[in-house]
Amino acid sequence: MKHFISLENLDLEIIKDLVNDAVSFKKRNAFPNLSNHYISNLFFENSTRTKLSFEMAEKKTGIEIIYFDAESSSVKKGETLYDTVKTLSSIGVECFVIRHSQDRFYENLISQIDVPIINAGDGCGDHPTQSLLDLVTIQEEFGSFKDLNVVIVGDIVHSRVAHSDAKILKRLGANISFATPKFWQDTTMNMGTYTSLDEVISESDVVMLLRNQNERHTQHYDEKNFLSQYGLTKERASKMKSGAIIMHPAPINRNVEIDEDLIESPQSRIFTQMTNGVYARIAVLNYVFNS
Amino acid sequence: MKHFISLENLDLEIIKDLVNDAVSFKKRNAFPNLSNHYISNLFFENSTRTKLSFEMAEKKTGIEIIYFDAESSSVKKGETLYDTVKTLSSIGVECFVIRHSQDRFYENLISQIDVPIINAGDGCGDHPTQSLLDLVTIQEEFGSFKDLNVVIVGDIVHSRVAHSDAKILKRLGANISFATPKFWQDTTMNMGTYTSLDEVISESDVVMLLRNQNERHTQHYDEKNFLSQYGLTKERASKMKSGAIIMHPAPINRNVEIDEDLIESPQSRIFTQMTNGVYARIAVLNYVFNS
Amino acid sequence: MKHFISLENLDLEIIKDLVNDAVSFKKRNAFPNLSNHYISNLFFENSTRTKLSFEMAEKKTGIEIIYFDAESSSVKKGETLYDTVKTLSSIGVECFVIRHSQDRFYENLISQIDVPIINAGDGCGDHPTQSLLDLVTIQEEFGSFKDLNVVIVGDIVHSRVAHSDAKILKRLGANISFATPKFWQDTTMNMGTYTSLDEVISESDVVMLLRNQNERHTQHYDEKNFLSQYGLTKERASKMKSGAIIMHPAPINRNVEIDEDLIESPQSRIFTQMTNGVYARIAVLNYVFNS
Repeated sequence: MKHFISLENLDLEIIKDLVNDAVSFKKRNAFPNLSNHYISNLFFENSTRTKLSFEMAEKKTGIEIIYFDAESSSVKKGETLYDTVKTLSSIGVECFVIRHSQDRFYENLISQIDVPIINAGDGCGDHPTQSLLDLVTIQEEFGSFKDLNVVIVGDIVHSRVAHSDAKILKRLGANISFATPKFWQDTTMNMGTYTSLDEVISESDVVMLLRNQNERHTQHYDEKNFLSQYGLTKERASKMKSGAIIMHPAPINRNVEIDEDLIESPQSRIFTQMTNGVYARIAVLNYVFNS
Repeated sequence: MKHFISLENLDLEIIKDLVNDAVSFKKRNAFPNLSNHYISNLFFENSTRTKLSFEMAEKKTGIEIIYFDAESSSVKKGETLYDTVKTLSSIGVECFVIRHSQDRFYENLISQIDVPIINAGDGCGDHPTQSLLDLVTIQEEFGSFKDLNVVIVGDIVHSRVAHSDAKILKRLGANISFATPKFWQDTTMNMGTYTSLDEVISESDVVMLLRNQNERHTQHYDEKNFLSQYGLTKERASKMKSGAIIMHPAPINRNVEIDEDLIESPQSRIFTQMTNGVYARIAVLNYVFNS
Repeated sequence: MKHFISLENLDLEIIKDLVNDAVSFKKRNAFPNLSNHYISNLFFENSTRTKLSFEMAEKKTGIEIIYFDAESSSVKKGETLYDTVKTLSSIGVECFVIRHSQDRFYENLISQIDVPIINAGDGCGDHPTQSLLDLVTIQEEFGSFKDLNVVIVGDIVHSRVAHSDAKILKRLGANISFATPKFWQDTTMNMGTYTSLDEVISESDVVMLLRNQNERHTQHYDEKNFLSQYGLTKERASKMKSGAIIMHPAPINRNVEIDEDLIESPQSRIFTQMTNGVYARIAVLNYVFNS
C-alpha cells in the first residue's frame, strides 16, 4: 500500500514513471482497469476543477466513487478527520483523495490508518498531482526537463504549486528563476534566482504563471497595475522564443496575471494542463492501487 | 455534433423523429447504448424533477455522469459559464445539460465551444425537453397532432412551457387557445386565440395547465379565488369530453391551478408526463451523440 | 413487493434469514446482483454514516443510484414527501431509502404508493437497519442470541436503537437490562430490568452503549461527570468477562459515553458494526427486490 502525499519524498525514477505513464495513457487512450475498487474524495476546501478531474480519472479506470459531501457531513459538527476516514474505511472505502485547509493534515492519518491517502492539496503546503500534471505537460512538449529554462511568475509565497514545481523541476535538471514582486518573494526558497520577467522572458522555455491567491492575502496590493508591472502582457509574450509555452494552474484572474487574449493563444498550454491532469491522476491511482 | 437548444430552430421531421423515438424506447423498454460517454448536468437553478429525469435518462443509456455542484463551484466566486464549460470540457466532459436563470445563456457558448449543449431551461425563454415530453404524451394518447384542440391555461406570460408548446403544437397542426386572466396574457403571442376555460372546456382534447410562477410575479394576484375563477375545478373537468386529457408540467400548486382530487384522476396524464420525460431525454441524448 | 419499515412487524424467521444472509455475504465476499435497478436515498436528516453505508451496499449489488439532494430539492419549498416520492417513482426510481425527522413518516407513503420503502430512521421511532447490523455483529460473535446477557447503557429515552434492539433481542431470547440515569429511563419500556452498569458489568456478554443525543435534550445534564457516573470507564471495562464485547452505534462522544482508549480496544466491535452495516443493508436490499 502506497500513499501519494508529496513529490518530495518520492524517488526520481518513480516520478519519471508516473509522468511517462500519464503521457502513454493519453496517447493510447487506454487506462488501467481498477474496477471493484471503492474511493472517496474528501474535499474540505472547494475545488471543482481538481475534484472533477479526480472523478474523471476514477471513472475512466472503473473505480466506484462513494460520494462524500463535506458540507452535510459530521465534520461540520466537530467530527475529526481521523474519525471520518476510519468510519468510511470501515464501510469499505479503500482510498481517500483529500483536500484540506490544514498544512500536513495527513500526518496523523498515515501513521494510524491502513488505507492509502492521496493529497489533493494541503493548506499552503503541497499539491502533488498539480505538480505532476505540470511535469506531464512539459514532458509532452519538450521530451525531457534537462536544462530547460523555467520562469515561475507571481504570487510565489502563497503558492503550493510554486514550491513543489520548483523543487521537482530542479531535481529533474531544469534551471529555475522566479519573477515576482518583492512582497511575494519567499526568502526560504533557494531553488532558483530572483529576477524580473522582462529579464528572462526571451530565454525561457516555460513561462509558468501562478494565480494571485487573493483569499490568502493579508496585505493590499495594486491589482489594477499588476499585469503591466509583473504579469504576462501581449508585449512580453511577443518576446517569447519560438516553441516556448505559457502555463497557469487556473482559475485565472483575467487581465491580472495574464492578458486574456493570451489564454487560448497558440503558446498557451493552460487547457492542455487541465486535460493532462486527468491522465496524471490516473497514473497516481494506478500507482496507489497497483504498486 | 448537434446542440439541442430549442424546438423552434429544428425541422419538423427531426422533432417528429424524436417524439417517435421516445415512444418507441418506452414501448420496447430498450435504449441506445451511449456508454463510454461523459456528461455534466449544470443546474444553476434548482430543479430536482428535470435534473433527476436527465440523470435517469443518462443512466439508462450508460452515460457516465460527472457530478457538478453549482452551489460549491467557482461560479459562485464569479467564474463565467464559459470558463466553467471550457474547463470541464478540457477534463473530458463531452456534453453539457444546462439550466440557467439567464435568457439565451447558451449564445456565447455555442459560438465558442465545440461540445454539445442541451438547454434544460433558460430564464423565461425555452425549455425544449419539457415541450418534447408534452409532445410525446400527446402523441402516445392521440397518435397525431393534426386538428387537436389544445387549451393552455393560466400563467402564460411567465411560462417557458406555454411559449414553446404553443409554437410547436401549431406547427404540428393543432388548434391552440389560451385561457388566462388578463394580467397574465402575453400580447406578443399570436399562436392562438384568447378565451376562457368555460368557453372551450367541452371541445378541448388537451387541457394543458401551467404552474403559477409565484417566484417571478411582481404583482399580487388573488391566489385564493384563482381555482374557482380560472383553474380546473371538478365542475369544469366534468364537462371535458370523453378521451380528453389533463396535463400540467409540475410542481403543482394544489387547489390553485387544479383541484387536488383531479391530479391522479383517470383523465390526468400529469405523472405520465414525468415518466415520458425520461424517454424524451433519452431521445435527445441519442440525437446529440449519435446524429 | 416488500417494505422494510421495522423489525417489529417481521417474522422471527425472516429476521434470522436476513442476519444469516448478511453474515454469509461478508464471509464469502459475494453479493446478489441487483443491477438494472434504480434507487434513491432521501435523507432529510444528515447522516453520513448511514447514507454512505447504504450507498456502498447499493454499489456492491450493482444498483444504480439516482442522487437526491434534500437541501436543494423542492421539499425545502414545501413539496410533500408524498409528492417527491410519487415524482421520483414516475421517473423510474424503484425503491426509496428514507431518513426523516418525523416519527412514522412512512405511514401515508406505504398506504398510497406502490414502491418499496426502506426506513433509514424515523424521528425518535425506529432504525431497523441499525438494529439488524447489531444483530449481525452479535450473531457473528456468539453464533446465537439465546440467553446472552445484554446491557443497554445511557440515553435510552431518546434512542431509536435502544428501543428496537431491546425488543428484537428479547424476542430472540436474550436477557436485557438497562443501565441509565433516572432522567433518561423510559418507563414505557418493559423489555428488561433497570439497573446500574456496575451491578451487571461482570456478567454481561454485550455492553451496548448509546450516543447521548444532545440535539434532542431539552434539559441540561452533567456531561462532564457522565463518564465516571454512568459511562464505560477503563475500570468498569476491566471487569468485563472474557469474550464479552463493547458496542456503540456511533458517532461517539469521546470520553462521555466511553473512555476513548477503549474505542479501538480488543473488546470493541464499534468499527466492526460499521463494516457489518453494509452487509446488513445488502441483505435488506436483496429482501426488498428479490423476495
